[in-house]
Amino acid sequence: MPVPQPKKNEVVVDIRAAALNHRDLFITQGLYAGIKTPCILGSDGAGEWRGKRVVLYPALDWGDNPNFQGKSFRVLGMPEDGTFAEQIAIPRKNIFPMPEHLDWPQAAALPLAGLTAWRTLFSRCKLKKGERVLITGIGGGVALMALQLAVAAGAEVFVSSGSDDKIARAQQLGAKGGANYREEGWDKRLKQESGGFDVVVDSAGGDGFALFPGLCNPGARIGFYGGTLGKVNGLSLQPIFWKQISLLGSTMGSPREFRSMLAFVQQHEIVPVVDSVFSLSEGVRAFERMELGGQFGKVVLGI
Amino acid sequence: MPVPQPKKNEVVVDIRAAALNHRDLFITQGLYAGIKTPCILGSDGAGEWRGKRVVLYPALDWGDNPNFQGKSFRVLGMPEDGTFAEQIAIPRKNIFPMPEHLDWPQAAALPLAGLTAWRTLFSRCKLKKGERVLITGIGGGVALMALQLAVAAGAEVFVSSGSDDKIARAQQLGAKGGANYREEGWDKRLKQESGGFDVVVDSAGGDGFALFPGLCNPGARIGFYGGTLGKVNGLSLQPIFWKQISLLGSTMGSPREFRSMLAFVQQHEIVPVVDSVFSLSEGVRAFERMELGGQFGKVVLGI
Repeated sequence: MPVPQPKKNEVVVDIRAAALNHRDLFITQGLYAGIKTPCILGSDGAGEWRGKRVVLYPALDWGDNPNFQGKSFRVLGMPEDGTFAEQIAIPRKNIFPMPEHLDWPQAAALPLAGLTAWRTLFSRCKLKKGERVLITGIGGGVALMALQLAVAAGAEVFVSSGSDDKIARAQQLGAKGGANYREEGWDKRLKQESGGFDVVVDSAGGDGFALFPGLCNPGARIGFYGGTLGKVNGLSLQPIFWKQISLLGSTMGSPREFRSMLAFVQQHEIVPVVDSVFSLSEGVRAFERMELGGQFGKVVLGI
Repeated sequence: MPVPQPKKNEVVVDIRAAALNHRDLFITQGLYAGIKTPCILGSDGAGEWRGKRVVLYPALDWGDNPNFQGKSFRVLGMPEDGTFAEQIAIPRKNIFPMPEHLDWPQAAALPLAGLTAWRTLFSRCKLKKGERVLITGIGGGVALMALQLAVAAGAEVFVSSGSDDKIARAQQLGAKGGANYREEGWDKRLKQESGGFDVVVDSAGGDGFALFPGLCNPGARIGFYGGTLGKVNGLSLQPIFWKQISLLGSTMGSPREFRSMLAFVQQHEIVPVVDSVFSLSEGVRAFERMELGGQFGKVVLGI
């Protein structure tokens, strides 16, 4: 690819690390709307601009309304060239100072996952100190960031996973407990152990989603930013309305939310979990690592 | 039944009119949790206390939290004796001045339906002037109150029903348009006609619920206070999170919300729709009218 030339209001950043998201994998598999090639993938990046260490806001044109993205909103990396490259030309307003306690891979692991977790927990679910939180499917980048952000915010966090090992590792990151959803009756045990949840964060959807209202306390919020297990069936509305529960769809957020998230991460010295680092020339292996699915934290490209 | 004797902090109200709710019918059918007999049913009532015209807040012990009812919250009329009687002993704080423009049946039609519609539209869905609203299953008491409240608040309201006649009557009450859900493609036509919805109010649930996110604009809120058609199947989360939609369970509300609703009804001179009035001795016919299902507005007992 040619060296990128900045347009008006753009700068060129020397990328030092980039991180993979499922979106990148889905695009390589043809499972995404409006695929355009050739294109450099990658939404997450950290690098240098004029000697300053910066992280990139991973999207373009959120728009004016804090409640939802505008029509021209798009995630970085397809159709615009993304971060899996030595350099990127990007609007000046997309670059933010990198939290000082992070190294390049950790900083690259932060933007999309941190922003998505931030918006879900705080903008949408209005998480408050002392509340009890369930984060499902721990191990993915957003779920881990949600765990770390919620712990730092003073919440009591529980997790679910199909892997006892991931649950144990989540506990090392501050989770109070967890349940393996492959075990019969996990939901009832987890409700008893936790005392019920004020906030649930999910990205799987599917029929398991219908269990969440039963695990919730009155006034609970269930935030979700994905639905990888497909449509929800068997969802009973009665516990939802009787307990005044809110089901809140969420995506990545606005530049303003990104700034708030970065400040919080810096203040609490949160270190994103990096699963593995590959060189750019090993990029295909990084995608294979993600496709395999067992990762705990972000798959990163060192550049 | 003996004449009710007021306990401490209670007053005795001479009921002039009472209104039926589905809850009353369900209790007579054994379809309600914790049924206790003998008991006087009835949550809705208007009457006289010391020469003043009053309406009754239709529940007891909401509790301290505006976001959800406390554990001892209960709807008026079972286990405590309700409004289908000449007199009721009720806490002093449950009686509120009756809006002056209403007659007895209209006032009796207001409390539970008005409160449920108010909380759903304003406390939960944060309806704003100029927004577009879909109210499904128009004809029931809460749906009609939601229509009237939303129109008075300056929203553009559309309705759905299985009856063209009910849609036409809703238009006389201020609805801009409507769709008969028995017709193929009603949802797509309604989306096109309306331009998409910012707020949806539903009490049916069932598989039709899964259509609503597709009818919604970004940032929309779907409020629901019932699920008479059963569980929701086939609910896709993708349009919900991508459009930042909120699904918000709601019930009747707090005394504070009741006071706000009454003030709004008085200010806008909203007149609840009364389907029919039966005498107390014809009470069984009133229940049959409700069981039959074709009503438009509230079924009232004149006492």
